[in-house]
Amino acid sequence: MKFGIDVGGTTVKIGVVEKNQIIDKFEIPTKKETLFQDICLFLKEYMKKKNIEQIEGIGFGLPGNVIGNYIHNLPNIGLENISLEEAIRPYFPEVKLLAQNDANVAALGEMLYHNEYKNACMLTLGTGVGCGIILNGKIVEGVHGAAGEVGHMIIADDYGFPCSCGLQGCLETVASATGIVRLAKYHYHEYKTKLKNEFTAKDVFDLAKKEDPLCLFVVDRVGYYIAKCLSILAVTVDVEVFYIGGGVSKAGDILIQTIQKYYQKVSHYAVKNVKIEAAKLLNDAGMLGAAGLI
Amino acid sequence: MKFGIDVGGTTVKIGVVEKNQIIDKFEIPTKKETLFQDICLFLKEYMKKKNIEQIEGIGFGLPGNVIGNYIHNLPNIGLENISLEEAIRPYFPEVKLLAQNDANVAALGEMLYHNEYKNACMLTLGTGVGCGIILNGKIVEGVHGAAGEVGHMIIADDYGFPCSCGLQGCLETVASATGIVRLAKYHYHEYKTKLKNEFTAKDVFDLAKKEDPLCLFVVDRVGYYIAKCLSILAVTVDVEVFYIGGGVSKAGDILIQTIQKYYQKVSHYAVKNVKIEAAKLLNDAGMLGAAGLI
Repeated sequence: MKFGIDVGGTTVKIGVVEKNQIIDKFEIPTKKETLFQDICLFLKEYMKKKNIEQIEGIGFGLPGNVIGNYIHNLPNIGLENISLEEAIRPYFPEVKLLAQNDANVAALGEMLYHNEYKNACMLTLGTGVGCGIILNGKIVEGVHGAAGEVGHMIIADDYGFPCSCGLQGCLETVASATGIVRLAKYHYHEYKTKLKNEFTAKDVFDLAKKEDPLCLFVVDRVGYYIAKCLSILAVTVDVEVFYIGGGVSKAGDILIQTIQKYYQKVSHYAVKNVKIEAAKLLNDAGMLGAAGLI
Repeated sequence: MKFGIDVGGTTVKIGVVEKNQIIDKFEIPTKKETLFQDICLFLKEYMKKKNIEQIEGIGFGLPGNVIGNYIHNLPNIGLENISLEEAIRPYFPEVKLLAQNDANVAALGEMLYHNEYKNACMLTLGTGVGCGIILNGKIVEGVHGAAGEVGHMIIADDYGFPCSCGLQGCLETVASATGIVRLAKYHYHEYKTKLKNEFTAKDVFDLAKKEDPLCLFVVDRVGYYIAKCLSILAVTVDVEVFYIGGGVSKAGDILIQTIQKYYQKVSHYAVKNVKIEAAKLLNDAGMLGAAGLI
């Protein structure tokens, strides 16, 4: 039995995992001051209640930069420079502990859930664009914890929108939720549309499904840039499958099909048969992947 | 003691390697019909002459697509579908055998030679553009043997030159030896130049060092696209160092400095301190890396 802990900005998801299945799950609020203490006390209480004496380990998915169990920063929570050992050890003196960035952990969770491939990338399309890369069943962490930061591939430099990272033309500037809104505003007067003055990425996809000309154009462009990113990943780490997850991916078939169409056009012949699929696990990927670290 | 075999289109380089040092080396001609037989007979003869009874293994770097010791094709030699086991086993019944693509093997050799990092990419700029990616001391092979095929990242789509792979705007179309000549011809009438009608990539670099306006412009563009490729690799696999090798890299400082300049402009803040260095091993990287597979 393992615990998989998915730490978010507002809640902490706690999963009890056995043989890559979540057998029990809980949520507690994320409190900056007592984050790791709250988690540990909850786990100890749970073990006592269930008469569990031993666990295999505790895995953590954390929203920030984590390298080798050292938490450099969790910007959305406002914490930095925390040693996982120091935070957890007082409560669990002999348990295996491992932590990773949440996009990486979600990718691992998705892969474990499908239980079909050992080489996969999962693109997370949300407020930003992240990616977890799994090679031979293991997360690629990178020496700066920056592996899979594909949101900052400069591949939309024909638009050249400024990115929050300081660069221009990053994938994130056109393929994140805010990027999609930005693209639609940029082309607002070029195509007919039923979009109001204020709208979200979800509105763009909803109207695209109703054949709104502007929204169709925007979804086409978003699919193109994501396909370009995947074609680059394919000739770099050459995996078996790409999973598309995150809030934006709820758009469903229309986005996946556009990505697949362009992927066939822009990918190298050796990697044309790589699968592109919607991620299946929504809220559970983090817990499952965090436990999978152990 | 290991043997590191670097198979090229015209010659096979055979290295005798001990503790990551080449202690003896030989060349034999590459003959399509008897390639592996020639190599094995040479090795057996060498071992007999030197009274060597046991070796740790034989590693091969091969110019083509190799996955899990199966040689799918060696286009420049005209061989395909060869099992390394079947080819070598009759001569060496109990020796460890491993084979990999030559760009991957050269990257491993370069890394072993420097003996400083365990996470590195080596870009090979020659007739084409290849790349070996080493993570935690191990070559990333990819499920189709296409890992590190960064010559086919579509990042020069503002030019959009057709690539031999069928795509347009691949890095290789502007950063290989032929790509550099192509760029110079494309801009031939826009800048003053001392380039004759027929010229090579080496001519472009030689004249750029003498401040020839066209050649300076071309080297600037080549450095820019390579930097863009490295910035993408950095947010994908996040290594410690990039080595620049291959025939084109003999241009030396002028190319490395241009790449470094643009890398600072186009790389994500988390990976700005990654080192970019000229590869040091020229002809020996393949042998050393092939032995390093063992």
